[in-house]
Amino acid sequence: MIVTLLTDFGVADYFAGAIKGAVLAVNPRAQVVDITHEIPAHDVEAAAFTLLAAYDAFPAGTVHVAVVDPGVGSARRPVVMAGGGHLFVGPDNGVLGYVCERAEGVRVFHATEPRFFRPTVSATFHGRDVFAPLAGALSRGVEPESLGPKITDYARLPFPAPRRLDEATLEGSIIHVDRFGNCITNITPGDMGGGRATDGDMLLRVGAHEIRSSRRFFAESEGVRGEPFAIWGSAGFLEIAVYLDSAARLLDVRRGERVIMQHKGKSGA
Amino acid sequence: MIVTLLTDFGVADYFAGAIKGAVLAVNPRAQVVDITHEIPAHDVEAAAFTLLAAYDAFPAGTVHVAVVDPGVGSARRPVVMAGGGHLFVGPDNGVLGYVCERAEGVRVFHATEPRFFRPTVSATFHGRDVFAPLAGALSRGVEPESLGPKITDYARLPFPAPRRLDEATLEGSIIHVDRFGNCITNITPGDMGGGRATDGDMLLRVGAHEIRSSRRFFAESEGVRGEPFAIWGSAGFLEIAVYLDSAARLLDVRRGERVIMQHKGKSGA
Amino acid sequence: MIVTLLTDFGVADYFAGAIKGAVLAVNPRAQVVDITHEIPAHDVEAAAFTLLAAYDAFPAGTVHVAVVDPGVGSARRPVVMAGGGHLFVGPDNGVLGYVCERAEGVRVFHATEPRFFRPTVSATFHGRDVFAPLAGALSRGVEPESLGPKITDYARLPFPAPRRLDEATLEGSIIHVDRFGNCITNITPGDMGGGRATDGDMLLRVGAHEIRSSRRFFAESEGVRGEPFAIWGSAGFLEIAVYLDSAARLLDVRRGERVIMQHKGKSGA
Repeated sequence: MIVTLLTDFGVADYFAGAIKGAVLAVNPRAQVVDITHEIPAHDVEAAAFTLLAAYDAFPAGTVHVAVVDPGVGSARRPVVMAGGGHLFVGPDNGVLGYVCERAEGVRVFHATEPRFFRPTVSATFHGRDVFAPLAGALSRGVEPESLGPKITDYARLPFPAPRRLDEATLEGSIIHVDRFGNCITNITPGDMGGGRATDGDMLLRVGAHEIRSSRRFFAESEGVRGEPFAIWGSAGFLEIAVYLDSAARLLDVRRGERVIMQHKGKSGA
Repeated sequence: MIVTLLTDFGVADYFAGAIKGAVLAVNPRAQVVDITHEIPAHDVEAAAFTLLAAYDAFPAGTVHVAVVDPGVGSARRPVVMAGGGHLFVGPDNGVLGYVCERAEGVRVFHATEPRFFRPTVSATFHGRDVFAPLAGALSRGVEPESLGPKITDYARLPFPAPRRLDEATLEGSIIHVDRFGNCITNITPGDMGGGRATDGDMLLRVGAHEIRSSRRFFAESEGVRGEPFAIWGSAGFLEIAVYLDSAARLLDVRRGERVIMQHKGKSGA
Repeated sequence: MIVTLLTDFGVADYFAGAIKGAVLAVNPRAQVVDITHEIPAHDVEAAAFTLLAAYDAFPAGTVHVAVVDPGVGSARRPVVMAGGGHLFVGPDNGVLGYVCERAEGVRVFHATEPRFFRPTVSATFHGRDVFAPLAGALSRGVEPESLGPKITDYARLPFPAPRRLDEATLEGSIIHVDRFGNCITNITPGDMGGGRATDGDMLLRVGAHEIRSSRRFFAESEGVRGEPFAIWGSAGFLEIAVYLDSAARLLDVRRGERVIMQHKGKSGA
C-alpha cells in the first residue's frame, strides 16, 4: 500500500501533485511517499543511483515509481519490474537499471494494458497518465503479470564499476555529490577487500589531490578540520568527505571525476 | 480522506509542517499530500493556475487547501468551495478562481463558524489556524453548508483567455514557465480549432522569435536539437518547448510574455 | 501513528526517502509527514527552533524525528523524549533542546536497545538506521521506557532569551528569517508586557534602522508600502516585516543580528 515517487519534475510545478493524485485516484488507500523530485532534469543515471540507494529501506512490497522520461510519448515502453521483493514502474530507458542489475529475482513486464492507464493518455506526461495509475493498480494487489507480457530485451544501464589498472591500482569515479558536498565514488568494500576506507598504506587521488586519511564516522578526530578523508558511506560506497564542510567544493570535484585508489605497499608509487 | 496542500510557504520554514499538523489534529486519519509549497510568494495567479492543473488528477471528494494569502488577518473572508466533485478551502482572493470558473456545479461558502477553527486564531497564519482545520473537518465528512452561509459575491479571477485580433490571428500569453523551461501559453485546442499544435501554415511569434514547427511529443524528430517547437501540453494548453533544453532560456521569455499565433493561409503575414 | 521528519538532509538525495522507508519498514501503517528537510546543514539551533514552532500543531501522540547530526557515529547518544503529549527522537546534541525547555512533563531516555534499530547500523546515517526505526517502534505503541534507561544529563540548548539592559530597554536578536524575509526575534509578549507589537512610544532598533510602527496583520494600513513594522508572529515571537516584501533584504539583516527594544516614555532615548 506504499507507493514511492522519484522524478525530475521538481516541486514547484503541478507535476508532482498530479502524479500523487493519479496514484490515489486508483487507490485512495495508498500511502504516497516522495523519495525525491529533484533529480536533475533528464538525468537517468542520477535517478537510477538514487533509486538504488533508497529503495530497500522501504518494506517489501513497496511500489516505486521512477520517472525521468525525456522519451515520453515516443516508442519507448512503459515497464513494470519485480525484484528484491519490491515493485517498480517507469519508462524502459535505464532508470530502473541499477536496481535491476543488483536485485534478486528480477522480472520485467511491458505494460500494455490500457485499462490500467488513465482514461485519456497525454503524449507528454506519462508520469500522471501511465506510470502513476500502474503503481496504483500494483498497490491494490494487481499482479505485474496482468499488466502486459514479460520481456527480456528491456533497457540495461550497467552500473559504472571501477576498473583494475594493475594489482595495486583501481580506477573509479565520483558517481554522486550529496547536499553536504560528500563525494560518493563507485568503489565498494568488495572492490577494496573490505576494511577501513583507506587503511594503512592506501592512497586516493582525485584531481590534483591526494587523500591519505580515513575515518569511520564524520566527527572522528574532530579536531582536524578542513582535511578531506575517505569514509564508507551509507549507500555502500567509498565517499570522500570533509567534516562540517563540502569536499566537492574544497577539492573542486564534481560527478564524473576520476578517482585513483592505490595500494602503496604493492606498487612503486 | 485526502487533503492536498498548495501554498507559497516554501519548505524550509515551520509553515508547511504546521499546516499538516493542523489538518491531522482535526482528522488524524486524513492523508495529507503536498501539491506544492513553492508558489512564488504572494502570487495568487500562479497558485490558481497550479491548482487548476493539478486538482482533477485526484479522486473525487479530495479536499484541496490553497493558501496564498497576503491579506491574512484582514477582512478578506475564508471560503469553502464545492465544485467538480472536489472540495476547496482558501482565502477569498481569487486563489480558487480558475477552478471556480471551469468546474461544474460550483457552490461557495463563507466559513464563519469558529468552532471549526483552531481554538486560538493568530492574525498572521490562517493556513494553520483556519484553512487547515476547515480541511480537516471537510475530510471527516462535515458538509460545506455547515461551515457558514452560501455566498455569491466571492472574488472572481477571470482566466486570462487569448484575444482574437483578426480572423487569422490570436494574441495569447505565457502563463507559466515550468522547471524544464517549457513555456505554457493560455491557448487551448478550442481556441485553435484543435489539430496539431502548429499545423501546416500556422506560425507562432514570441518576442523576436518565430516558431514554425510543432511536435506531438518532446522526443519527436529527435535529431533536431536546440529548435523551439509548439506542443500540446499536459495541462491542456499550447506550450513552447525545446527538446532536452529550456525554451524560456533559449528564447529569453518569461511569464506574461505576449504570444501571437497566426494562420498564414488566411492573412498576408 | 503520525511520524514527522525534520532534518538537514535536503530533498535532492536519497536520505529523506531512506528515512521514510525505515519508518515504514517498522510500521507500514504510520503516516510519515515532512516538516522540513531544509534545515541549513549541521545547524542544530535552526532545527531546534523549527521543531519548537511546528510540533504542537500536530495531534497529541505524534512522533517527531529531528535529525541534524554532525556527530553521527561518535559517542553522542540517541535519545527519545516524551513531553507536552508528544514523542521525539533524535541525537543528544540539543536538537530537541528548545522543546525540552518549554514542554510539560519532559522525560528523556537513552535509546540503547539495538533490537529497535535497523539490523545493520551504519556509522554515517543514523537517521535511517537508528532514529527512523525508533520512531517506527514508538508509532506502534512501544513505550519510551522500553527503549533504554531514563537519563537526566542530556544535552541542553538554552533558548536565547532577550536580556534586559535597563528598565526601559530589552536586547534581543533575530533568531530566524523566513521565506518571506520576515525577521523573527526572540522577544515574546511576556518579555514586553503584552499588547500591540510596538505600542505608542515603543521603538525597535535593528542595525542602523529604527522601527516605530506596528501592525496586527500584514495587510493593515495596506497603502503604506516598503515600510518595516513590528508584528506578533504565528510562532509567538515579535517579528519585523514589510508588507509584500522582504524585511531581511530591505533592512539588510540576518539571523543573529541584535535587536534593541526601547520604551521611549521610560528612557531618555
